[in-house]
Amino acid sequence: MANVSNGAIARMLIRTYDILAKKRDGGKHTADEIRALVQGFVSGDVTDYQMSAWLMAVCINGLDGEETAALTEAMIASGETVDLSSLQGLTVDKHSTGGVGDKTTLVLAPLLASAGLTVAKMSGRGLGITGGTLDKLESIAGLSTSLSKDQFLQQAREVGCVIAGQTADLVPADKKMYALRDVTATVECVPLIAASVMSKKLACGASTILLDVKVGSGAFMKDIESARQLARTMIDIGTRMRRRTVAAITGMDQPLGLAVGNAVEVAEAVKALSGGGPDDLRQLCLQLGALLAAAAGRRSSEPIDKSALSAARRRLAGLLSSGAALDKFRQMVAAQGGDSRVVEDPSRLPQPSFHTVVRSASAGYIAAVDAGAIGRAAGLLGAGRQRKEDAIDPTAGILLRKKTGDRTEAGEELALLVYSGTVQVEPAVELVRSAFRFADAPPEPAPLIHETLGF
Amino acid sequence: MANVSNGAIARMLIRTYDILAKKRDGGKHTADEIRALVQGFVSGDVTDYQMSAWLMAVCINGLDGEETAALTEAMIASGETVDLSSLQGLTVDKHSTGGVGDKTTLVLAPLLASAGLTVAKMSGRGLGITGGTLDKLESIAGLSTSLSKDQFLQQAREVGCVIAGQTADLVPADKKMYALRDVTATVECVPLIAASVMSKKLACGASTILLDVKVGSGAFMKDIESARQLARTMIDIGTRMRRRTVAAITGMDQPLGLAVGNAVEVAEAVKALSGGGPDDLRQLCLQLGALLAAAAGRRSSEPIDKSALSAARRRLAGLLSSGAALDKFRQMVAAQGGDSRVVEDPSRLPQPSFHTVVRSASAGYIAAVDAGAIGRAAGLLGAGRQRKEDAIDPTAGILLRKKTGDRTEAGEELALLVYSGTVQVEPAVELVRSAFRFADAPPEPAPLIHETLGF
Repeated sequence: MANVSNGAIARMLIRTYDILAKKRDGGKHTADEIRALVQGFVSGDVTDYQMSAWLMAVCINGLDGEETAALTEAMIASGETVDLSSLQGLTVDKHSTGGVGDKTTLVLAPLLASAGLTVAKMSGRGLGITGGTLDKLESIAGLSTSLSKDQFLQQAREVGCVIAGQTADLVPADKKMYALRDVTATVECVPLIAASVMSKKLACGASTILLDVKVGSGAFMKDIESARQLARTMIDIGTRMRRRTVAAITGMDQPLGLAVGNAVEVAEAVKALSGGGPDDLRQLCLQLGALLAAAAGRRSSEPIDKSALSAARRRLAGLLSSGAALDKFRQMVAAQGGDSRVVEDPSRLPQPSFHTVVRSASAGYIAAVDAGAIGRAAGLLGAGRQRKEDAIDPTAGILLRKKTGDRTEAGEELALLVYSGTVQVEPAVELVRSAFRFADAPPEPAPLIHETLGF
Repeated sequence: MANVSNGAIARMLIRTYDILAKKRDGGKHTADEIRALVQGFVSGDVTDYQMSAWLMAVCINGLDGEETAALTEAMIASGETVDLSSLQGLTVDKHSTGGVGDKTTLVLAPLLASAGLTVAKMSGRGLGITGGTLDKLESIAGLSTSLSKDQFLQQAREVGCVIAGQTADLVPADKKMYALRDVTATVECVPLIAASVMSKKLACGASTILLDVKVGSGAFMKDIESARQLARTMIDIGTRMRRRTVAAITGMDQPLGLAVGNAVEVAEAVKALSGGGPDDLRQLCLQLGALLAAAAGRRSSEPIDKSALSAARRRLAGLLSSGAALDKFRQMVAAQGGDSRVVEDPSRLPQPSFHTVVRSASAGYIAAVDAGAIGRAAGLLGAGRQRKEDAIDPTAGILLRKKTGDRTEAGEELALLVYSGTVQVEPAVELVRSAFRFADAPPEPAPLIHETLGF
């Protein structure tokens, strides 16, 4: 039926048509086909409507390991990459699939740098319930995350850690594909998620990568099996491209720590870097940090025994209590133009104009604090952006007073809502109230880390 | 992840996203969802890239009978419909899925009209190897297929048959969807094909519809099982919408008749209307005509016995030999402004400037004449269009001298290629030569009609 003319455009069309037909029929792509599709999409020869049809076919019929690695490579090749080979020492990177109250990067980057590793990290800004790592950092007055490649490498060399926004030319194919996936119901697809994450991690050049795959009500992955599948797919991509890639599946049924927002999370990260802060945040940072430190520089075939992990963990705990990690954070903030006095005086962080207290209506044990609901409530208060162009209220957020397993009496504070904008506070209060579930006895404590992969 | 803002556009987006996600996950749509999608697509609220993602999901996960009928209804509702209720007598329509040398409409429309039925038919122009019915008719000097709705109804009333182009406002959703399917590998999909065909047939208002589903090398459907599935799906749609709908699965391994092109097919149709012409064309027209005449006015539950079919067939054969069918053709041509003298003098049809003879290199029986290859060769000579805006050479085509089962000696004519434009004739000759396969004995004759459905 679809006879087409002979010109170059037609040949391109025929080729794209054939690629789409192959995935529609459940076939396996060659690396050349995937490269042609991604290159064509970035150059405009493959249209949005052709790409979205392919993405849908992939969501339904899947991509195998080779195809996913080829997609990742083609996406990386669509832009520039960062070459970290001029840096001394071991370069490490971490990625979290995103959770509520997840400020681990703010703690881990300076902590690992104080241990002698180099953390040269580029973050995306992302849409969501609260801001991303960049938004959190930018609540520090003067701090810039828009660094040139030279500034980025220089800070990595001199300070040992840097957290910057992705430059525009880093994996442009991912930006273009994600914009399309976001409006065509093709977001929820393991190989596409894995290729999107790994293309950016691999383009950033670190030799060891830790993937923190969150699972639970406040995470994108709702069950362990999907989280495991995503983790395995990402490890497979990293391993095929000769990077040491490891993963931890971590719980996100309740928020991490007590603070959810932007400035409030920076303040909590500073506490953790000072050796204090909520226990779950501290423990997770030490465990993830130990995994990454132990994996760095080891080949995939080299096993990591428990004693190496315990040693790494003890060393990191020492760097928190000695003030070395906090000092590294101070250096990083200063190097990026930020007001490093926030370390000694958190009141220099933006302060909210309004507070609203949510109190418990009944007595009992907290059986659950739904991270998803708390995240949405923080969003309603202005802590997140819904569209790329939205502004964030850095002061907005939620400070939890109770977490899962805690005892409460009727009338006790469950949470404090903070904000500065003109927001409808009632729906946020309702969401926070609904997030708390009660029981007569404390529930079994859930593990922070469900399992690790790639070791 | 994909939190979206609150405005109307966002609600539309969320809704479209949900519809896409449902079909991605293999769910079943409500009629409301399908209506929202089709209406939104026509109005522009649903983008091309969203529609193409949905079309791909449908190609892979399918649509059931209810969904396909809802899609057909939504497509019909996107434009105006033709109301034939003012016409007296029984209104019938036929649709062929397309084959090489298929000029049955040119014979059947006047033949059935001469039997007292009303054939008010709108045709699409279509892309393909040779022109469609409209292109064939337009090779008659002066004949117009661009009729207003009033002209269309008036001719149906006064002559009993009319063949016109689809008006621009007939099922606009189909035009827009087909343009997208054509470049996103979503053409080959039974429910989408069925909804596309049936939306146009149902919008044209005839109370009885015959579907001629071609199967074989020169047809879109290559095997009987796919043809049967398509026929059943279309009958199901028609029946749900209270039209008597029947189907015949007919062979298209070799071209129908001896002429393939535009003017040459009109000349052959005139021969058949005069009671002559190639036997396969005559037999197929009589059999299809009898099926349609017997089904017209009968409810789905009423069986049609063999004697009713034989009687209808005898009656139609009489109308061919009496000249009544030919006279009806003459009236139809005249009513549409065409030079009706072509009926007596076929040399008034456009004549080719060039002839090229293809002779047999060997002796033997013709085992097959690949309809697909003959069709492509006719296309190379200028008989079809590859892009909507291409012009057709009405004189171009192929006259077969031998068909399957015929005996040939070395050096005998297999086919005559005719054309007037500056075309590369060598590739066409090669294609025609390759279309003929030889054997030492004549093959078993293949049936014209493999099976009928809906009776």
